[in-house]
Amino acid sequence: MPARKTEKHTKRNQAARSTSATAPPVEFNGSVAIISRRAADRIRAGHVWVYQSDMESVEGEPSGLVAVADHRGIPLGTALYSPASQITLRLVSASLIDWKQWLDLVRARLQSAIRLRLSMLSAQTNACRLVFSEADALPGLIADKYGELVILQLLTKPLDNDEIRTLATDVLHEELAPATIVERPDPRIRELEQLSAPSATPLYAAEEEHPLLSTDFRLNGLTFHYDATAGQKTGAFLDQRENYAAAARYAHGEALDVCTYQGGFALHLARSCPRVTGVDVSRTALEVAEKNLAANAAQLHASNVDWMEANAFDLLRDWSASGAVYDTIVLDPPAFAKSKRAVEGALRGYKELNLRAMKMLRPGGTLVTCSCSHHVSLADFQQVVATAAGDTGRRVRLIERRGAAADHPAILTIPETEYLKCLICSVE
Amino acid sequence: MPARKTEKHTKRNQAARSTSATAPPVEFNGSVAIISRRAADRIRAGHVWVYQSDMESVEGEPSGLVAVADHRGIPLGTALYSPASQITLRLVSASLIDWKQWLDLVRARLQSAIRLRLSMLSAQTNACRLVFSEADALPGLIADKYGELVILQLLTKPLDNDEIRTLATDVLHEELAPATIVERPDPRIRELEQLSAPSATPLYAAEEEHPLLSTDFRLNGLTFHYDATAGQKTGAFLDQRENYAAAARYAHGEALDVCTYQGGFALHLARSCPRVTGVDVSRTALEVAEKNLAANAAQLHASNVDWMEANAFDLLRDWSASGAVYDTIVLDPPAFAKSKRAVEGALRGYKELNLRAMKMLRPGGTLVTCSCSHHVSLADFQQVVATAAGDTGRRVRLIERRGAAADHPAILTIPETEYLKCLICSVE
Repeated sequence: MPARKTEKHTKRNQAARSTSATAPPVEFNGSVAIISRRAADRIRAGHVWVYQSDMESVEGEPSGLVAVADHRGIPLGTALYSPASQITLRLVSASLIDWKQWLDLVRARLQSAIRLRLSMLSAQTNACRLVFSEADALPGLIADKYGELVILQLLTKPLDNDEIRTLATDVLHEELAPATIVERPDPRIRELEQLSAPSATPLYAAEEEHPLLSTDFRLNGLTFHYDATAGQKTGAFLDQRENYAAAARYAHGEALDVCTYQGGFALHLARSCPRVTGVDVSRTALEVAEKNLAANAAQLHASNVDWMEANAFDLLRDWSASGAVYDTIVLDPPAFAKSKRAVEGALRGYKELNLRAMKMLRPGGTLVTCSCSHHVSLADFQQVVATAAGDTGRRVRLIERRGAAADHPAILTIPETEYLKCLICSVE
Repeated sequence: MPARKTEKHTKRNQAARSTSATAPPVEFNGSVAIISRRAADRIRAGHVWVYQSDMESVEGEPSGLVAVADHRGIPLGTALYSPASQITLRLVSASLIDWKQWLDLVRARLQSAIRLRLSMLSAQTNACRLVFSEADALPGLIADKYGELVILQLLTKPLDNDEIRTLATDVLHEELAPATIVERPDPRIRELEQLSAPSATPLYAAEEEHPLLSTDFRLNGLTFHYDATAGQKTGAFLDQRENYAAAARYAHGEALDVCTYQGGFALHLARSCPRVTGVDVSRTALEVAEKNLAANAAQLHASNVDWMEANAFDLLRDWSASGAVYDTIVLDPPAFAKSKRAVEGALRGYKELNLRAMKMLRPGGTLVTCSCSHHVSLADFQQVVATAAGDTGRRVRLIERRGAAADHPAILTIPETEYLKCLICSVE
């Protein structure tokens, strides 16, 4: 558990002492991180991250929170400190605050985030992202609601402690009164941040003997299944919820859903299309997709939807060569560019998928094409789709340009909060 | 009236003769324009414009249509020829077509464009752009519907002839049976293209003695007035229709509509806000806004809306300095960047307006900020708004990123068709 900042008065920090004559005199309590001029400029422009390469020095022994100052000692605010992470600092306040003030902020920000989401739920949709990390000014804290089941993730070192865990559980319980609150972190991120494995016990369960750990939930009036004990991410991608609905509005005829995963787009397309084929490389995912389809038997004809286990690139290459045609195609591949270096290859991948899909569309066909690569900008993605359009020689009309659903907010000054791109096009 | 291409067989053209040994042998009838390699690449990538600076030679005496070939003589298609315009060629077909085939294409494209729009109309909205130039593969041809009144614009030299005029009138009449069809060109564009002034007589009028030349029309259930005899553009900006409705969904409290023109945003805001102030520099525009307000007396309280004649920059500077605050602010300035050279100044203008507006918003306030400058990209505009957010030190959440309404389609390979940007933000 981080030491409380207010308990640290042992020495005035170096930053304050090195302050130039013109800078305002500043007195920091506790630890101070001095960051490069470039990083300070980023913070002043409204970003909240400081990379390890921009750390100039750390005075004191920060555990959890640290004051942040520029190279002249001028304070920039208070940050979460993750010494082992490439993103070493995440600003949480433009003021100098101590641990107790931070806990008050966490409570207030959790409440504000959850209340914003509650206004987005309806009889049709009882699942959403409740708290989204930097986008809710709570870096590393993610909470999702699947019906009565709430999943908490604490993904940075300074949040991974029982004080935060208990506080988050309390607020989630007060605001939502769910059946169960489970902690279920992303293994990849926990490794990057060098976090320990969380307990398998729910943080809260209304039925302690038989806690709810898997459940059906509703998204746009369709039923999906979520299982907190399954290995990989399950159910559906909540950030695509509004895009699922938008795709159904423009879908028609024979539809192909490429990288359907557990059937998110495919089931929505089946509301508008007499024939839907969902393709995914994972058999496990398709088995869940089939169960999701069965769970919607009241509104969808199971015989109109089939699933195919295949690699997207191979399938589109073979099918476009064989002259297969569709009226609607959805492309929702996993993130190709996991790093900045991978962007060029990712753009080639998007180009190929989109080119082949366009060639396979009948005149007037609908293309729904997505990218969730953080490192590929909307402008770059749209340019790649435009280039594919030019190569096919077909006129492609942009009908809608969409992002993540409203429960995944984007902050203008933190471009990384805006990662999901979805273009809906008519291919003439 | 342009001579028919099929009547021109007098000489084989230079392009065909200069074709290299490796290029396929091509025989053009009629006139041929040879364009630079750069321009040919643009055409092959799906654009349709060729600038005067990219014209290498013109063989024959084109009047209206001209065949287009690259520097090796390889044909690229057929274009409209505007010798006096900076945009000298506008491709209308990837094939070599004659004037009669072009007229058939115009008829088919008009029908297709109009039918697409008819599916967008409703009891709430009986006005829209029917035909939008390059976006409907009819470069220079624009038609708008305001209730029973249809306005036609023929904005390029090769379209400004009675054969096209009669054909467009016929198709508009067949598809829509409006009360009146009037030609009403943009004086600025007519000057650029060196077009003659059109006749004041309607092209068609059901009531020939008393043609309908001004009318009320409905946009999202609100009433606006259109007057075909007025000097400047009237009524409302049709391309903002869906953004008007979206703004009303997020608007609350006291609202300020900057550059309200004839009240488009302001009247929509008045559905959600108890207090709306519409600001514009044009007294004439505000007089129409006041009439539009009165026309909606059944659903809007006139006393909740007031109008103020002022320059946007002066007003925001004075008011933000005096500490005025609002819950909702709309910024919809005219295009700042009328040319590429003006982009930098335009970005400064957007920055200033957005910065001041953000400062004037109460916490949780809604900012609706637009740019209709063709030369300012969405990415650049969003960056400017983000920079303003950084400067204010406020967290700005991007709620929606919007473009022009669906009756103003964008073609992916013609970036100029995508000019209107609208960001809806929550300023925390």
